[in-house]
Amino acid sequence: MQSFNKRLLDEIKRKNSHLCVGLDINPEGLNNYNSTLEDLKAHTFKVIDATRELAVAFKPNLAFFERWGSKGFKWLEETMDYLGPESITIGDAKRGDIGNTAKQYAMSLFDHFGFDSVTLSPYLGFDSIDSFIMQPNKGIFLLCRTSNPSAKDIQDFKLSSDELLFEQIAKLAVKWNKNDNIGLVVGATKPEEIERVRKIANNLPMLIPGIGAQGGDLKKSMKYGNKNGVALINISRGISFAGDLSTSAIKDSAKQFLQKMREYN
Amino acid sequence: MQSFNKRLLDEIKRKNSHLCVGLDINPEGLNNYNSTLEDLKAHTFKVIDATRELAVAFKPNLAFFERWGSKGFKWLEETMDYLGPESITIGDAKRGDIGNTAKQYAMSLFDHFGFDSVTLSPYLGFDSIDSFIMQPNKGIFLLCRTSNPSAKDIQDFKLSSDELLFEQIAKLAVKWNKNDNIGLVVGATKPEEIERVRKIANNLPMLIPGIGAQGGDLKKSMKYGNKNGVALINISRGISFAGDLSTSAIKDSAKQFLQKMREYN
Repeated sequence: MQSFNKRLLDEIKRKNSHLCVGLDINPEGLNNYNSTLEDLKAHTFKVIDATRELAVAFKPNLAFFERWGSKGFKWLEETMDYLGPESITIGDAKRGDIGNTAKQYAMSLFDHFGFDSVTLSPYLGFDSIDSFIMQPNKGIFLLCRTSNPSAKDIQDFKLSSDELLFEQIAKLAVKWNKNDNIGLVVGATKPEEIERVRKIANNLPMLIPGIGAQGGDLKKSMKYGNKNGVALINISRGISFAGDLSTSAIKDSAKQFLQKMREYN
Repeated sequence: MQSFNKRLLDEIKRKNSHLCVGLDINPEGLNNYNSTLEDLKAHTFKVIDATRELAVAFKPNLAFFERWGSKGFKWLEETMDYLGPESITIGDAKRGDIGNTAKQYAMSLFDHFGFDSVTLSPYLGFDSIDSFIMQPNKGIFLLCRTSNPSAKDIQDFKLSSDELLFEQIAKLAVKWNKNDNIGLVVGATKPEEIERVRKIANNLPMLIPGIGAQGGDLKKSMKYGNKNGVALINISRGISFAGDLSTSAIKDSAKQFLQKMREYN
């Protein structure tokens, strides 16, 4: 069975693309506070159609679907059907719970929704991620150093070993990666930390958010992220809500990001 | 406006109950792998009916609903309607995401589902919890020292200040508790750590899971948790799946737990 990390690497090479399109669709992004769920769904499908040939992966953000309850989850089910099995899918859920509960989340994200991989939070330790890494063809991206301003509150705690907390998380991820299906989330807003993590986590794929609306550095993210491993660059709002929200504006924005990634590679 | 923590304290006194009933209903618990969603829903309502007079709070565990996708979320919506506004509700979701996404989760859990409070993971820092603590009447329980065996993997990291990571999380919670609506999750499986956290977090309510199936210590949890603050003791499987799964078996189990809590108070 092909491991998740191997599949990701092969697809990045085959498509010559490091682009992950984040699906974070809300009325605020559409500049229409009266958007119906049908409007949100139509825009989701538009983004997928416009970027399918360019993106190597799609990352639906669960929060934007959960906001609408059962009807939002119906929209997520339809989105997963629409994506189909060709594109690599990442369920951006950031779950993290005790073993028995983690099992239910794995059943939700892998078996029910059919994601190929998910983002997970490390705070509860190994038994909170175990259920997600048992099948080599399903993968996880463990939160390591995130892109938000408050990431430093906890992730930058200095340990008695003189390392920072996020560096220890990277070490644990390397240790736990027996099935070649663990990657790390490292934000583009602090690219020097991508470099620090890369020194620890050779060969682990990195999911790098924070480009675009959050102001991260694409050039450095590509440089550090792709050294001794592979970087998957996520763009959400910068593509989904580009220009006049038309298919061509979305496609043009995705093309521009992809062109820069190829240039910096 | 009454703060969440004040409401919780008042209700605990009024009902003379520290019991929180966790709703983690699955086919495995019912010993019936052919359970339909209707069976799961019927059992959920049975547990609520059997314990409504005894419990001060109910804690639906989102994972057990999400496992079934949109239909599971429908069941959660119906469960919240069934609980009504009288009981205090805790959405056990353990979310934790960047600011813009945290907002969507707050809309989901507070506005859509109508929870009074939620569990949150601290790994992303302040801007991941900010959206959840703006309204004083809505509260959070921040993960501090959890009840699972792997909790130690990360939560027990020793910091350069000589404290353990979970102790620093408790300090941050105290600092962030401007609206009197932050509590902490501290597992009953390591009661001496409840005592350590209590020394830092005077007056913050503690949600204490891990009694029952996980083998935590109820007597010590009550003793340390209720000193300089209030303890809310969660029981899930030990009540929901008690005896022959009948209303009377469920009620008897809840009564026994409650009686012990009153004895140890």
